[in-house]
Parts: sequence; structure tokens; C-alpha cells
Amino acid sequence: MNRIGNLVRAEVAGQQAYSIDDIPAEIKLDANENPYRLSPRIKTRLFSAMRSVDLNHYPEPGSGSLRRAYAKHFGVGDDMILVGNGSDEAIAILCTAMARPGSSVLIPVPTFAMYRIASLNNGYRVVEIPLDDRGDLDLDAMKAAMKAEEPAITFLSYPNNPTGGCFSADRIEDLIRMSPGLVVVDEAYFNFSGRTFLPLLSRYDRLVILRTLSKIGLAAMRIGFLIGSPALVAELNNVRLPYNLNALSQVAAAFYLEHEPAFLEQSAKILRERERLIRSLRSIPGVRIWPTDANFIFLGCNSREDDVYDALLRKGILVRKFGRPGGAAGIRVTVGTRKENGEFLKGLRSVLVPGR
Amino acid sequence: MNRIGNLVRAEVAGQQAYSIDDIPAEIKLDANENPYRLSPRIKTRLFSAMRSVDLNHYPEPGSGSLRRAYAKHFGVGDDMILVGNGSDEAIAILCTAMARPGSSVLIPVPTFAMYRIASLNNGYRVVEIPLDDRGDLDLDAMKAAMKAEEPAITFLSYPNNPTGGCFSADRIEDLIRMSPGLVVVDEAYFNFSGRTFLPLLSRYDRLVILRTLSKIGLAAMRIGFLIGSPALVAELNNVRLPYNLNALSQVAAAFYLEHEPAFLEQSAKILRERERLIRSLRSIPGVRIWPTDANFIFLGCNSREDDVYDALLRKGILVRKFGRPGGAAGIRVTVGTRKENGEFLKGLRSVLVPGR
Repeated sequence: MNRIGNLVRAEVAGQQAYSIDDIPAEIKLDANENPYRLSPRIKTRLFSAMRSVDLNHYPEPGSGSLRRAYAKHFGVGDDMILVGNGSDEAIAILCTAMARPGSSVLIPVPTFAMYRIASLNNGYRVVEIPLDDRGDLDLDAMKAAMKAEEPAITFLSYPNNPTGGCFSADRIEDLIRMSPGLVVVDEAYFNFSGRTFLPLLSRYDRLVILRTLSKIGLAAMRIGFLIGSPALVAELNNVRLPYNLNALSQVAAAFYLEHEPAFLEQSAKILRERERLIRSLRSIPGVRIWPTDANFIFLGCNSREDDVYDALLRKGILVRKFGRPGGAAGIRVTVGTRKENGEFLKGLRSVLVPGR
Repeated sequence: MNRIGNLVRAEVAGQQAYSIDDIPAEIKLDANENPYRLSPRIKTRLFSAMRSVDLNHYPEPGSGSLRRAYAKHFGVGDDMILVGNGSDEAIAILCTAMARPGSSVLIPVPTFAMYRIASLNNGYRVVEIPLDDRGDLDLDAMKAAMKAEEPAITFLSYPNNPTGGCFSADRIEDLIRMSPGLVVVDEAYFNFSGRTFLPLLSRYDRLVILRTLSKIGLAAMRIGFLIGSPALVAELNNVRLPYNLNALSQVAAAFYLEHEPAFLEQSAKILRERERLIRSLRSIPGVRIWPTDANFIFLGCNSREDDVYDALLRKGILVRKFGRPGGAAGIRVTVGTRKENGEFLKGLRSVLVPGR
């Protein structure tokens, strides 16, 4: 490392950037995107709304109008919402705001990589507790870690990325009750799980909820929401950049609320395809399907995840592979269109059932 | 402060969010925006390019294509560029990456507020050195502070916001030569000053340059650039969020390069209006005009900045007022259209020359 490296915070210099598989592939089932485009009619309306923006002016600082609209949508006060440049930014803001010297972050593993990365970047110790055999929280171990480490933040992905299932709500509530710090419930995949901790916000001021429009069809626009107690949101606004959400993303987020049914139709279609895909996967020997409440499926392949990943990629199909943090190794595949899922199944069969 | 406040990092809880004057006013001369809209022809082309984006897909991670295009534009390697969600984000990334425990940041004052805010949010001590009487760096005091405090980052706004002039290039280079940490030269107003430290990048690996498209006409899109040594940029990429720039801003930034002359015509027009405005201001008694290399002018008004600000606002004209950090108190006015500038002059005269 040269001298610049020595000037950088040790935790930053020590880590690898979040690796995005920016690998060209014909069929991309790696990023948990909605595979369906907006209809031309809806897209025309959206771009016509966007075109009314004067691009020479700064966006509304703090996305005030959006905050008010989404407060109604979520049924909370508008002083309980922060709009982020994706929920990634909300995670980073939380990590910066809560980084008292010597603090730690608690996460179950495997889970969404950004929790660990944003925590390390802000100087936290990261305490990782493996999930139990069924992909649920190991409650005893989580509680023991909470007591011993007093984490400033506990991040829970609900449903969990990459394993796909929702943790037991009871276990999460147990943790919220005893937590000395914030418990962040990341509901990025809410549109597929239908399960939310929103109603519990009034009971627990340590509870923070994250939402996003990335999985429902607006990944390109980077729009995320943090919902928490007014006292917390006020502090987080000290860290949020004043113009963190560009003007066209603000228009798109407002547009989403006015046209939600068109988006929900697509997520309903994804759920139907998910059930078809699961049924087909069950017929392939050597595959363990983890229960899913999301728009992706986690597959255990008897430790052959590298082979499976490579073989699929050679066929032009990109998925994500995971090593064995917390013992869960496997392939995460996003539910695509019927055609994409068919190609994936064909590819997977040819790897796992070579005799065919 | 309730218990949430006690969980937050002390420096964050202790500060006020960057106050944006989100005050409705007919004539907004407060934010150093380009007052001219894109021509309908150019805007149609831009939105047609944007419309080709599939909004259901994530943007290109790390803005790789843009980075390559702007590397050519700036005449540097593409491993020397980070594209930010505005240069605000580049400032925040720098502060997070360099925040070794106990570190300090050095800034002259008055200057752009974000340097102080982002530094405090990341736990730095902020060392502030007043500008000299002529608005230039107090080189002896800056050198002494650099020696005593060994700042991880020194931020220099070039030209300086809010005072408007460029610091002496010699003084800046002196500081770069002796700096133990990074020296960030923020060239947000480059299009109006025509002065840049880009050619010095090859000589000093501690030098970092910031640029933005916000002042040239794309403030709504939030597009900023950090240019620095490959070793530094590699470390900063560990902190940058993977999808920090939305897809439409990526399109807009690429579009800018292909249509730069249309934007430069507008900045030339702003410079002509600035000279007219300065000539008119010179005829108003009681106003001290600071030399400017930017698209705004800083006016000393004999400590009457509050009265002037309020009186202008009552006439529907919004400017920025500054107290006396570093001894410079006054009004910062953005160069607007000829009509806007005329209204501002009329308003200012009526406050300062009440007999008229």
C-alpha cells in the first residue's frame, strides 16, 4: 500500500468494494429486479411529468413534498420519513449518524452485504451471528450478542436477502424490546412478502423501517425510504445531504403513488411466476429450495455453487453465488419472465442432471 | 434531548442540518444556479435519450461508461475519476474514507458550508482559519495550522463560495506541497473562473479536484466528479455506494459532453450579465463589491445584511446572507437573467439609498 492508503481509515482500506456482477449476460437474474418494463402508455405519462422539471434548478431540498405524500401512504407522520438515494443511502446515513467511538453493529449472516460494508466504512466492529438451520434468526445467540456487545444498530433484512424467507416476527420483536440501540427492519421486498413492521413503529422508538422502489420496477431511479421516530429522523437529517434526491427521481416517486396499481400488477405476475418456478425446481434432484417471501429463490446445490454458477454463465444466464457465511452456500436466482425462468431451469437441469 | 439523541454520534446531534433557504420567492438569486433553461430542442433530445432507459433495471454500477468519457474530457486516466450524486456526495465520501480516529479538517472561512458539516458528521475536529482582508488565504496562518494539526483533509473552494474570488494559485500550491493529508480544490465554479488545478494532478498525489454540472445548467440532476490519484480513487470506491448515480443522471451527464457548446453559451451570457451587474452595483453608495470569478457576487453592506436581506425578500427577491465568520459579512447574490438582476438592483437601491 502506498502513502495514500496509509492516510485512509483502516477499515476502509481493509475492505473490498461491494462487488457488483457487472458481467454482460443475455439473461440477468442476479439483481432482484422486476423483469417487466413499464407499459409504453405509463412510461409516456411519467416522462411527460419529468419533462416539466427545469433542469437548471436544484431539486426540492429534503424531498418535502414526497415526504408528505409517502407519510400518508405509510400511515405515519411526515416527520418520520427520510427519502434516500436508494435505501443504500439510508443505510449509510444511519451508519454515519450512529458511529459513536467503539460502537458495534449486529447482523445475522448471510444477509445483505451493504450492512457490513457501510458499518466498516464508518468504523464499527461488525458482530455476525449465523442464521439457524431453517434460515431463521438464532434468537439465543442474537440476544447474547446484543447483551454482550450493545450494538448501536442491528440490521434485519425482512425477508432476508439472500436466503429469501422472513424471520419469525416474534423473534424480531423480542430483539426490538431488548435492544439498547436501533433495530432496522429492511423491507426492501415488502411487495412480495406482504409483511411489515410498520404498525409497530408507534410502540418502539428504536424501530426503523426501510423501503425501496427498486424491486417494484424503478431500480434505475434510486428511491428509498427510511421510516422511524421523529427524534431519530431529525438527527439523520443532519447527516443527509441537502439535495440527496435528484428532481427526476422525486417526480418518479410521486408518479409511483399515483400509478401504484400498474406496478402491483407486475409484482402479482412475478409471484405467480415464482410459484411456477418453485414447482419446477422441486422436480430437479440435488437442489434444496429455501422458503422464499421475496422475488428471488435461494438454492442449495450440495456445495456445487461454483460449478453451477459457471455453467449457467456459459449459457448466458447470470445469477448470484454465495459462499458459506453462516453455513448457507448456494445460488440466488431472481424470478424473471416466464421465458427467462425456462432458460434458467433448462440450464440448471443440464448441470445437475448431466445424464439428460 | 430524548434517548434517541443520546445514541447518536455527539458531533451529529450537536449540529444543525445544512439550512437550505426553501423560501418561496418570485426571483431566486440564492443558489448559484444557471438562470437559463435548456432550449426546447436540446431538452427534447435529452429526454429522448433518457426515455431509452429501462427503469426496472439498476443503473450501471460505478458509472463506468461516464467515467471513461469524462476521463477523456478532463485529460486524466479513468481510474482517477469518481462520479458522485452531486459533488456534495464526493465531499461526504472523502470525509468518511479519511476519518481516522482523532483526525482534523482544515478550512479557510467563510467558505462552502458542506465542508464543515460533512467533517463534523464524520467525527473530525474542524480547524477554521479566517481569510485575509482581501478574501485570499492567510498563508502563514494556514501553514501554521497545517503544521500543528496535520489535517487529514484541507478543503479549498476555488473560486471561494461565498466570497467569489479565486485564492492565489501560488498559495494553494504552497499548501499542497507541505500538506500531510489531502488538499481538495473544489472547482464547482470552473465554468465561470476558467482556472483549474487539473494540470497539477500529475505532480501531487495529495491533490483532489471536484467538479459539478450543477452550476452550468443541470442542478436538478445532481452530478459531480472527483478527480484524484488512482490509489485514492480506489480507496474511495470502497465507500461509494455501488449504485450512487441514478440512470437518468448518467444519461444527462453523457449528454452534457455531447452538447457542451449549448451549455457554454449560457455561461458566457452569465459572465456578460455579471459584468453589467458589477458596473451597476459600483454606482450604489454603501456597497463593497468583492472581486468575483464565479456566477455570484458577494456584497458588503456595512453590517446591514439582515435589513437588506429582509427588504429584498419583501420584494420577492431571495438572496443569501452571511454573518461574520472570518469577518466577512454580507449578501451573496447569484447572477440572474437581465430582468432578475434589474429587479435586484432596484430593490437594493431602494434599501440602501432610501431618499430615492
